[in-house]
Amino acid sequence: MNKQELIQQIRKKSSFLCVGLDPDLNRIPQHLLAYEDPIYEFNKRIIDATKDYCVAYKPNIAFYECMGIQGWESLRKTLEYIPEEIFTIADAKRGDIGNTSKMYASTFFESFNFDSITISPYMGRDSVEPYFEFTKKWVILLGLTSNEGAEDVQLKKNDKGEFIFEEVVRSSKAWVDQDYTMYVVGATRGEYMKKMRDLVPEAFFLVPGVGAQGGSLEDVVKYCWNDDCGLLVNSSRGIIYADSGMKFESEVEKAAKDIQTKMSEILSDKKF
Amino acid sequence: MNKQELIQQIRKKSSFLCVGLDPDLNRIPQHLLAYEDPIYEFNKRIIDATKDYCVAYKPNIAFYECMGIQGWESLRKTLEYIPEEIFTIADAKRGDIGNTSKMYASTFFESFNFDSITISPYMGRDSVEPYFEFTKKWVILLGLTSNEGAEDVQLKKNDKGEFIFEEVVRSSKAWVDQDYTMYVVGATRGEYMKKMRDLVPEAFFLVPGVGAQGGSLEDVVKYCWNDDCGLLVNSSRGIIYADSGMKFESEVEKAAKDIQTKMSEILSDKKF
Repeated sequence: MNKQELIQQIRKKSSFLCVGLDPDLNRIPQHLLAYEDPIYEFNKRIIDATKDYCVAYKPNIAFYECMGIQGWESLRKTLEYIPEEIFTIADAKRGDIGNTSKMYASTFFESFNFDSITISPYMGRDSVEPYFEFTKKWVILLGLTSNEGAEDVQLKKNDKGEFIFEEVVRSSKAWVDQDYTMYVVGATRGEYMKKMRDLVPEAFFLVPGVGAQGGSLEDVVKYCWNDDCGLLVNSSRGIIYADSGMKFESEVEKAAKDIQTKMSEILSDKKF
Repeated sequence: MNKQELIQQIRKKSSFLCVGLDPDLNRIPQHLLAYEDPIYEFNKRIIDATKDYCVAYKPNIAFYECMGIQGWESLRKTLEYIPEEIFTIADAKRGDIGNTSKMYASTFFESFNFDSITISPYMGRDSVEPYFEFTKKWVILLGLTSNEGAEDVQLKKNDKGEFIFEEVVRSSKAWVDQDYTMYVVGATRGEYMKKMRDLVPEAFFLVPGVGAQGGSLEDVVKYCWNDDCGLLVNSSRGIIYADSGMKFESEVEKAAKDIQTKMSEILSDKKF
């Protein structure tokens, strides 16, 4: 998927919602455990309930990997089930040297057919370049994350008085394909979100941290909106675990629809 | 495995060699392709040929993951085949927030029974802490990597005139369990290796980049030796692809033995 196609989806659905598919056997509705592949059954129902309200799905790979071979199989089936026009994000946070990155790219872009993968920038340009050899596939670079530990590296200062995350993001512009690069920007750090937008005015941001982690949708829009919308705001737990009863699907749908309604109002205000 | 047990193995085998198990179907001896699980057959022969000369094995997880379910199965069997007393490293370079890190830890420490995992420090303390909840399991934090891209982030300067990698490593001392933390230090950067040793005098270093990538064993020892030896020097391609004929095992053994012989002389010089 390219940027124009993504923007078109945002307009069509009046939504910039990304749903995090982070299934946990201990938290999914327990009646699903009777199925042969409970994780896939759960995801399928989540996708059915939310697909009209979101433009992206983001499976966190750790949740599948920790279930071994069965987990990878559930992931594969989930990816096949996601409608073609919805953008998919492998939240894998990989980062390694060139020949290894190539393998990760092949795994997620070819075997699983993801549209994008999240990448840690710590190893620099050659850890990222191999991903751009794949047509219409995206890298989503960790910029400023929403967790506390962001203070330990990303929010230290460099010799020009900038934060490390600013240095990383500015530097990355020289070694990414800007047409196929997004940045992770945590919603919990309002004061820095604007800095991120100033650094990469045209990039899309993947924004975790709204809802459960305390970030607000209003702040995200205030600081990070651009002419293309430029936002994919992720919600995981708030949607997928909205209910755990026999008819959880309707609460899940409601949770997604509530966010989409807010987004629709914002898009309308912005005359997007 | 704890640090004393690792040191004991180094003394016993007169070696601080780590063998990288990075099997590639295009590069392994082609007669092995006739087996049901060629990757496992290859690894088994590599382990048989090298186990007397090394103290650690490091499978790069990307090489297995890219083969899908079969790859994970090959990895599982490989881990089971590695002798108990040899230290195992999941070269996964993960890095994510707490609840995700917990899952990665469970996957690699419990399901696969690895002794350690490589971790990117970009997300800071809460991305690392969950790994220390497992007994006798190690985190190997990326410090200064051997690839060119290290210039893009790690070798930028902070506001105290230090390199970012120095800041990261110094900072990490406050948020890791120092008894169970190693650092990745690329052998290609002689001038910075000493800085790393000064920062963490007592830590073990996992050192890639000797051989194929151009680093020298002598420099590694010169700059990074400590009273515990403090080194695991990795070689992958130079050993596992030493030959690709029907009797590749003898060349593989010779390649491992050659390095071990050099290490043995070093250890003897150091009266270790």
